[in-house]
Amino acid sequence: MTIQTVSTNTSYGGVQGVYRHASASTGTDMVFSVYVPPHPDGVKLPVVWYLSGLTCTHANVTEKGEFRDTCAELGMIFIAPDTSPRGENVPGDPANAYDFGLGAGFYVDATEAPFARNYRMWSYVAAELPKFIAEHFPVDRARQSILGHSMGGHGALTIALRHPDRYRAASAFAPIVAPSQVPWGIKALSGYLGTDKVSWRKHDSVALIEDGARFTEFLVDIGAADPFLTEQLRPELLQAACSKANIPLNLRRQPSYDHSYYFISTFMAEHLRWHAARLKA
Amino acid sequence: MTIQTVSTNTSYGGVQGVYRHASASTGTDMVFSVYVPPHPDGVKLPVVWYLSGLTCTHANVTEKGEFRDTCAELGMIFIAPDTSPRGENVPGDPANAYDFGLGAGFYVDATEAPFARNYRMWSYVAAELPKFIAEHFPVDRARQSILGHSMGGHGALTIALRHPDRYRAASAFAPIVAPSQVPWGIKALSGYLGTDKVSWRKHDSVALIEDGARFTEFLVDIGAADPFLTEQLRPELLQAACSKANIPLNLRRQPSYDHSYYFISTFMAEHLRWHAARLKA
Repeated sequence: MTIQTVSTNTSYGGVQGVYRHASASTGTDMVFSVYVPPHPDGVKLPVVWYLSGLTCTHANVTEKGEFRDTCAELGMIFIAPDTSPRGENVPGDPANAYDFGLGAGFYVDATEAPFARNYRMWSYVAAELPKFIAEHFPVDRARQSILGHSMGGHGALTIALRHPDRYRAASAFAPIVAPSQVPWGIKALSGYLGTDKVSWRKHDSVALIEDGARFTEFLVDIGAADPFLTEQLRPELLQAACSKANIPLNLRRQPSYDHSYYFISTFMAEHLRWHAARLKA
Repeated sequence: MTIQTVSTNTSYGGVQGVYRHASASTGTDMVFSVYVPPHPDGVKLPVVWYLSGLTCTHANVTEKGEFRDTCAELGMIFIAPDTSPRGENVPGDPANAYDFGLGAGFYVDATEAPFARNYRMWSYVAAELPKFIAEHFPVDRARQSILGHSMGGHGALTIALRHPDRYRAASAFAPIVAPSQVPWGIKALSGYLGTDKVSWRKHDSVALIEDGARFTEFLVDIGAADPFLTEQLRPELLQAACSKANIPLNLRRQPSYDHSYYFISTFMAEHLRWHAARLKA
């Protein structure tokens, strides 16, 4: 598989790259960013996956995430995929909504027309892209972890819960923890997966835990001033599920923080250090 | 004078704000950003001014500059003005160039029609905005410093050279040091100030130093892979002028870095610590 370099910039002694490739999962070209920290030749590095939220591309966290300083210090590769397929022939939301279609793939493999052909972000992020990255970057596939924001927090937690042996750590900023029970999630899951809610459960962190999925522990930060807190995020549902399943959850409500990258960037270094401690172990 | 809040976001324990006010200098509304770090009530804080480069608004450094972490730690206010007047009645470059007119005020007070009415960024940044900021934010006017990037590096150095008693430190990323001698500067200075090059000298760091202006010392970082290095930036001219005038200049050529915020953000914390050491003295 060929990789096309969109851009590379030296940063914190390493290389922040943006790349494009043809995805078999989505049937489109996909763009992603990779930061490779300074490292000795021939060394394989641990890798942190970051999944973005609604409306984002790879660019939001790449420009505003403030992760390179810590990744350079700790020697970790940081990967940011896009949030949906894009392109002329990719169907979007007929109403041009920000919360469905382009920029809102929700990390599922759609089964409903007209989305089933391209909206296969689960297969892309959890299977195709990790394999592709391993072919082109110096990653140690035995040392991977995952985090995400909002819709991407949902993606990170569900992918971790379904691959507990692959990811050594999972954390989230303001995640959607129970999409089956909140407006964003109900719209997305019904649109991509249809109205049979049984198919939703494997894309819902709370439902996955109820159904027996387990993970070593989670770190979750949520801003107490997040405007989506009570209607869309509902962290108390994850707290209850983790408590019942004996999954350690460090849920921190950060006073006066909102849903933006000003919040994410503030706690990014802490999350990365938490991941690093588990990736080096 | 009234201040309008465009947005505020909690970040690193402080508040990143964006504000709008009516500027008497430019005859337009102007937008700027201010980061106020966490601090005890009633304390006045040192302030760092950041001037941006061509095409930028306050937003570029605010989103991509990675300065809040260090400013929060060191207790410094960080201010980012816009780079030109903007608005329906503000003339831009007739050819819509990126290097003249909107986004390219060059930190001068224009004397040429049709720019003289609005393009008064020197008065705005060096006089009006500092006074306005002092009325609305907890700044210690005795502890100010200034830095900038590219065109904003030019602004920072010339403003410092003409106000050596006001600013306790001045540094730059990839500054234009001799606008009278390079294409960007010749276009801007002739367009704003006319063809009499005598009027250009007080807006040219190298000429100012040749004419007797002095400053305690400068820190300048330039990427060795900056595409504008040899034609537009020409740091060797500043090096020669500082050497002749006995102004200490720490000019660092950073291998493989370019002109982008990936470069700036890498060295932002170092610059801020260098400023802080001089602001606390």
